[in-house]
Amino acid sequence: MQTSMENRQDRLKKDETGSLISADKVHGTDIYNRRGDNLGEVENVMIDKRTGKVAYAVVTFGGFLGIGAERRALPWSVLTYDVEKGGYVVDATDDVLRQAPVYGVEAENDPEWGNRVHGLFGVPPYWH
Amino acid sequence: MQTSMENRQDRLKKDETGSLISADKVHGTDIYNRRGDNLGEVENVMIDKRTGKVAYAVVTFGGFLGIGAERRALPWSVLTYDVEKGGYVVDATDDVLRQAPVYGVEAENDPEWGNRVHGLFGVPPYWH
Repeated sequence: MQTSMENRQDRLKKDETGSLISADKVHGTDIYNRRGDNLGEVENVMIDKRTGKVAYAVVTFGGFLGIGAERRALPWSVLTYDVEKGGYVVDATDDVLRQAPVYGVEAENDPEWGNRVHGLFGVPPYWH
Repeated sequence: MQTSMENRQDRLKKDETGSLISADKVHGTDIYNRRGDNLGEVENVMIDKRTGKVAYAVVTFGGFLGIGAERRALPWSVLTYDVEKGGYVVDATDDVLRQAPVYGVEAENDPEWGNRVHGLFGVPPYWH
């Protein structure tokens, strides 16, 4: 996110109060690994139409870890917002992050795809 | 949404496959009442940080029903996507829609606010 600290504070006031956060605020938010390296930013969030649960963050990696500028899918449940960093920390090893699949229609149409992604990150699927 | 039918089809291919929909696609999507009147469009979606569930659609009404161009909150569960209309139908009477609360920080900080909004629309709160 390329906003100044002041702008971020304004946005927090407007879009993140109590337990809710707006999808607009999630978009463009930085992603960090456990060591605090900046990996990229959230490009979009994918919502399960039936249950209304956020399933994936689609993240654009910035080249760190040798991951090219591709749209990768991360299960929403592996992201934790870190107020000090002003971004999400991904609870996963670098090795797992490198294996994060590219997000695309063909992947989503494969019913086993969701199981594989959540299995990779060691979290229950969003539909459970 | 001011896109042509062709653009909408392209976006559907890219952002809405299977059971998932991107927040980007939800933004700007038209909202209709039960009779098919265009009420306005979705400006944002509010996500519950703890559970990852979409709580509210923040909708900008366009003056229909005498509702001014304000950001109003609708429980996500009262919206159903209508493929033919290319937008969401709100399952509520005009009278209920007129009472939809303006979305703001002060409302969100009130713990009873969520109960009142969901009660107005006759749906269980998103945290149930």
